[in-house]
Amino acid sequence: MIRLTWSKSLQFEAEDDHHHRIIVDTDKGFGGLDQGFRPMDLLLVALTGCMAMDIVAILQKKGGKIDSFAMEAAGTRAETHPRKYNKIKVRIICKGAYRREDLLRSFELSRDKYCSVTATLSSKPDLEFVVE
Amino acid sequence: MIRLTWSKSLQFEAEDDHHHRIIVDTDKGFGGLDQGFRPMDLLLVALTGCMAMDIVAILQKKGGKIDSFAMEAAGTRAETHPRKYNKIKVRIICKGAYRREDLLRSFELSRDKYCSVTATLSSKPDLEFVVE
Repeated sequence: MIRLTWSKSLQFEAEDDHHHRIIVDTDKGFGGLDQGFRPMDLLLVALTGCMAMDIVAILQKKGGKIDSFAMEAAGTRAETHPRKYNKIKVRIICKGAYRREDLLRSFELSRDKYCSVTATLSSKPDLEFVVE
Repeated sequence: MIRLTWSKSLQFEAEDDHHHRIIVDTDKGFGGLDQGFRPMDLLLVALTGCMAMDIVAILQKKGGKIDSFAMEAAGTRAETHPRKYNKIKVRIICKGAYRREDLLRSFELSRDKYCSVTATLSSKPDLEFVVE
């Protein structure tokens, strides 16, 4: 479970079950204080973080030696409300001593079999709300 | 755009275009260091953060005085890989001097009209990958 608590302006603090905390914020022009990630960027962090863990873990199991690994993600948003992401482009940049086919296979296994965030984004989860 | 960079073990650091940074990590049992949010929890933070900004902003515009505001979210995951969220339950807890109907209307406007994360989760965005 996560709990998000209003701090001030449009800034919030999120806490998980393991006592980690992050600030969620938005542009000053939208009433925020610009001191933390925006929610739509966090969606991209969730996506890349999930895939990155799969890819690094699988590639290493295949014997790959990774010197550096990064992912970049950017979304194209609809112009009208609710300005959802129509498309998300993801780049995977891996440097080290590994076989190209092993990196591609690790990526495919994440995308098609293991990544929980990718699968959730591709499946319209039920959302249930309670307003107290 | 966001950029996620591998740190060590299965721990990563994410950075947005505004120089904010957060640690993304996972359980020690899965090879992480347990020093930051897990990706699937970040998905819940993105969802609640986006809706929270809408609801607080709209309710205040309607003249509501908010003393405290929080949202909680928990997902029910599939038992088999890729263990996606089948359902996400969200609680909204608002205290202050406001009309109940204004809170409900603010929530509905977020859910149905303004929240970019809710809309993205409900629409299967295209995912495009480049492996360098």
